[in-house]
Amino acid sequence: MSNNYPLLGSINDPSDLRKLKQEELPAVCNELRNFIIDVVSSNPGHFGASLGVVELTVALHYAFNTPYDKIIWDVGHQAYGHKILTGRRDKFHTNRKYRGISGFPKMTESEYDAFGTGHSSTSISAALGIAVASRQKGEDRQVVAVIGDGAMTAGLAFEGLNNAGIAKSNLLVILNDNNIAIDENVGALKEYLLDITTSRTYNKLKDEIWHILGKIGKKGPNARTFAAQLEAGLKSTILDRSNLFEALNFRYFGPIDGHDVLHLAQVLNDLKRIPGPKLLHCITVKGKGYKYAEENRTRFHAPGPFDKETGHIYNTSLPDAPQTYQEVFGETMLELARQNPLVYAITPAMTTGCALTGMMNEFPDRTFDVGIAEQHAVTFAAGLATQGLIPYCNIYSSFMQRAYDQVIHDVAIQNLHVVFCIDRGGLVGSDGATHHGFFDIAYMRNIPGIIVSAPMDEVELRNMLYTAQLEKIKAPFSIRYPRSQGVLTDWRKPFAEIEPGKARLINDGTDVAILSIGHPGNYVKTASVALAEEGISVAHWDMRFASPIDTETLHTVFKRFNKIITVEDGILKGGFGSAVAEFMADNQYEARLVRLGIPDYFVEHGTPAELTAECGFDVNGIIRAVKSVVQKTEKPSPQEGRRMRVTRHIAK
Amino acid sequence: MSNNYPLLGSINDPSDLRKLKQEELPAVCNELRNFIIDVVSSNPGHFGASLGVVELTVALHYAFNTPYDKIIWDVGHQAYGHKILTGRRDKFHTNRKYRGISGFPKMTESEYDAFGTGHSSTSISAALGIAVASRQKGEDRQVVAVIGDGAMTAGLAFEGLNNAGIAKSNLLVILNDNNIAIDENVGALKEYLLDITTSRTYNKLKDEIWHILGKIGKKGPNARTFAAQLEAGLKSTILDRSNLFEALNFRYFGPIDGHDVLHLAQVLNDLKRIPGPKLLHCITVKGKGYKYAEENRTRFHAPGPFDKETGHIYNTSLPDAPQTYQEVFGETMLELARQNPLVYAITPAMTTGCALTGMMNEFPDRTFDVGIAEQHAVTFAAGLATQGLIPYCNIYSSFMQRAYDQVIHDVAIQNLHVVFCIDRGGLVGSDGATHHGFFDIAYMRNIPGIIVSAPMDEVELRNMLYTAQLEKIKAPFSIRYPRSQGVLTDWRKPFAEIEPGKARLINDGTDVAILSIGHPGNYVKTASVALAEEGISVAHWDMRFASPIDTETLHTVFKRFNKIITVEDGILKGGFGSAVAEFMADNQYEARLVRLGIPDYFVEHGTPAELTAECGFDVNGIIRAVKSVVQKTEKPSPQEGRRMRVTRHIAK
Repeated sequence: MSNNYPLLGSINDPSDLRKLKQEELPAVCNELRNFIIDVVSSNPGHFGASLGVVELTVALHYAFNTPYDKIIWDVGHQAYGHKILTGRRDKFHTNRKYRGISGFPKMTESEYDAFGTGHSSTSISAALGIAVASRQKGEDRQVVAVIGDGAMTAGLAFEGLNNAGIAKSNLLVILNDNNIAIDENVGALKEYLLDITTSRTYNKLKDEIWHILGKIGKKGPNARTFAAQLEAGLKSTILDRSNLFEALNFRYFGPIDGHDVLHLAQVLNDLKRIPGPKLLHCITVKGKGYKYAEENRTRFHAPGPFDKETGHIYNTSLPDAPQTYQEVFGETMLELARQNPLVYAITPAMTTGCALTGMMNEFPDRTFDVGIAEQHAVTFAAGLATQGLIPYCNIYSSFMQRAYDQVIHDVAIQNLHVVFCIDRGGLVGSDGATHHGFFDIAYMRNIPGIIVSAPMDEVELRNMLYTAQLEKIKAPFSIRYPRSQGVLTDWRKPFAEIEPGKARLINDGTDVAILSIGHPGNYVKTASVALAEEGISVAHWDMRFASPIDTETLHTVFKRFNKIITVEDGILKGGFGSAVAEFMADNQYEARLVRLGIPDYFVEHGTPAELTAECGFDVNGIIRAVKSVVQKTEKPSPQEGRRMRVTRHIAK
Repeated sequence: MSNNYPLLGSINDPSDLRKLKQEELPAVCNELRNFIIDVVSSNPGHFGASLGVVELTVALHYAFNTPYDKIIWDVGHQAYGHKILTGRRDKFHTNRKYRGISGFPKMTESEYDAFGTGHSSTSISAALGIAVASRQKGEDRQVVAVIGDGAMTAGLAFEGLNNAGIAKSNLLVILNDNNIAIDENVGALKEYLLDITTSRTYNKLKDEIWHILGKIGKKGPNARTFAAQLEAGLKSTILDRSNLFEALNFRYFGPIDGHDVLHLAQVLNDLKRIPGPKLLHCITVKGKGYKYAEENRTRFHAPGPFDKETGHIYNTSLPDAPQTYQEVFGETMLELARQNPLVYAITPAMTTGCALTGMMNEFPDRTFDVGIAEQHAVTFAAGLATQGLIPYCNIYSSFMQRAYDQVIHDVAIQNLHVVFCIDRGGLVGSDGATHHGFFDIAYMRNIPGIIVSAPMDEVELRNMLYTAQLEKIKAPFSIRYPRSQGVLTDWRKPFAEIEPGKARLINDGTDVAILSIGHPGNYVKTASVALAEEGISVAHWDMRFASPIDTETLHTVFKRFNKIITVEDGILKGGFGSAVAEFMADNQYEARLVRLGIPDYFVEHGTPAELTAECGFDVNGIIRAVKSVVQKTEKPSPQEGRRMRVTRHIAK
């Protein structure tokens, strides 16, 4: 701990913080903010959100008796200050690194992490559960949920408020209102909060009252005096009643300045004595105290490494490195939108993350950011599709879990032509277990009628996106791709249709067949070359579709090979390899089938390379698997006699 | 069409209705109501909901130009009147029957069904999609979503409102407020709506204004006169601003009497000319016009056949028939709650349907109806579990799809001891495609760390429920069971622990092994007896767990048998049989494996027996499958030499 942090260096847990005098809190905030800037500028992570709640974090741990009292950080990427104050200061440089601390609150990491988060809008429901349990156990525990205005738009938050409003439990919701999600917040609620904050409602009411009183005033004396008295009397009455949260039985307090730590500490202390559900509306600035982050909030949401003096964000990608799948998606969407007026795009609050900014700028009427609302995004898309539009609904794999019912009930059962663009499929890296796209191949392929695809490279992504909007498709079409760079430098090829359910042969061979889906096919390519050098001949198919699976190719493969390996960056249970196992069983083939993919536990955070190695489907893992099956199979294959030469080479 | 329906008999589609004089509408309503009572009393279906919207239905089709204008019926079980007026009057007696019309709106059934429904709270999002598409296409289409106050509590509805509030589209939301879901509606929103309806807010405000003015009045003349004028002036101002829906940018109208068809028709006509998002609050009575249904709204939600004259609901179960799994669940929960103070129960608006009324009555503090809010139900349960309570979260299989992310993110990743009681697993019968519990085995078994079980009978259900609360479990535990009667008459046995991941042998045999999970194991039992009579010897294991699957038993089975059949009432892709196929591949067994279950399409409505037969896993289907593998396998089994005698008989 350097000398720059005399106060922070003395805080090993919040009890140390609570020993400080109240007037020292601003200095603590200052040190905490600088510490976050110091560490995160060189150890990349989420940034703006934690800076925005520095004062709130200090005030909360000062006012409340943590860990007995419980603080739940919604989403959790704003909890860095909380981690630093709760015994993890000296480990904070390992944040988001392999085997380091998590970038999100995590119950197994600290008793101060009352509830693990990562996905948004869970905090009110979880806090209510804790508060109700405490009440039942006769404890006087205080429970606080800190939730942003962006997270407040998700249905789960509303469900929590609606239930908490009748559950007389000791629950404080702090609305951290910075008027932004990752991109600008959207929706009626955002406008409403802004309206409260700038007192427009109140001012409008006041004007109208004056107007009415003015007319009355002409008829009698003293009316203006009455008006002033009346105004004072009505103020609390009217404004209390006009509040959305009051309508849901929450006592509403605020809005107050979320950067005045002394006032915050005092208000929080006062609120402890008020029973029942209550909401404190705090106005904060995302990136507060670091001017570059205040000026560019979206860019500094999770900026990667940057120069803390100049705010320069380093370009960490190698020169001539391929672009990301996201960039390819964004550019391709723009191209398709220009070609086909029926193409629309929908994102739940991830315009920048999924690279829809280009389309949003050029086609604002055809690009919808619906806020953090995955369920609505899908059902809204279904509505558009009933009218013959072709909505591309872009949702991260782990967030699509939140719209699973809508995918089934509103899209698949009605066989609507909605295109699901499932971003962040597979291992996402440092965001960890809550954000990995483990499950989508498994949970999509079991839904009847959905075309479930995963392109292996940028050209295939483009061609999938192109194919998905063809009129003849007339079915739900899912395309999943990873959070990663692609593999090609020149991917701007003319569009080509891909027949749904058709694989392509990447490389023919004789010793073993590898069936891959999606990006990991590139690991197979590399492994195949290495294996060829050792005299092992790999035939490799990019299967492209988990459903409908290419049974023609599978028949070919199972007739020719008795050693078959499947590779996917999804959960093995029920996933793509499972589909191949089903095919093998259903068609009575006998082969040594090895399935590589994500095993049956929640993989933590780290770089994608580290995690892929851990799961054993990186290049080395594939090589190991091939060698193991090539060596292990001693008995002659029962299919040996049935082998046939396949001469067609579909792809390079 | 009998002579009882002179007007209704002339309405073959809404254009016929629109030819009638306005003053004839009450008579149409009367006929429509009687027709519904007539048909539904002998052809069971949902009842109270459709009676409650008779006037609304007639007024909507009278005021709007359907099918060009679009009406979306949220949930859809209230759309019987709509079906009868839109060309399906003469088919209405086939409602919910195999190959008859669906009990819910269905796009493929009629152009008047603008969007298929079944699950609640989708209508606003879908309507917004349609409205936006119409606007984009330059059409002047009117789009109406009819949603109940119960459905309004689900997060999806809020997400829809929040997004619609800024989307300046031509959208009318009709809030059909009958103050009830299937059970009494709950939550802060319900209290708020009641408050609007009875004008309590307005009255409170008025009182306070009078109080203030009274004090002013002492100081000057004419104050009481001013007060009256002021009150009139403030009325609209204050009440408009104090409205939750206005806060979300909807123009709010109402509340109005939802049974005054003439007024409704006029108001709807007026609203057509008001652009932008608007909400009409209608007060209705569920079961309106049929006194027995008005008096017992929960019982007459979907009463089964009844005597329309006396309101007597027939008992259609056979004398001495086993009780339902639901009844067993409800009674067992009560027993466990009495034994273990940590046992809690949560239901999202299905207290009666899942049979938690007993526990709700005896342990109101430990039983939570959270309203239609599956996401919240699960995350709230997770919050309770962090404090050492053991929540039993009871959610229907098809609705659990809506909480998939919460199961993964809030429960499984944190390995919390939450018990999921997945009701309505498998084919539910006449509710059809939207309500079948197809997917839960597949979507639960791929989540790491969850114990995924399905009991075969009532005793096993009881013992699963008992085992799930044992302290040593310390993991998420899922128990799924069907909407059906059980098979035992005497199931009130002392509790016995079931080791997670352990199968039981039901019947040993030599020709073929059948591995079943859940209730279909009973079909296997029956089939085994029939097959034994034909000299075919079946070994039958009740596998009980899809995850962890009993690998010890599977090794035994695959060593002894080369003909193996799996049976499940879930989707085949990725389901239980798929787990067995994975095991076979992973362990290099070779066998003829036939998987019976739900095929790769959305099975429609009918009786469970009809649908199970269609899917081919009823008793006859199992017999056919056994005969087919016994006859087809000509070549000697490669495992023949490895066979061993298994002597232990675990179960009767």
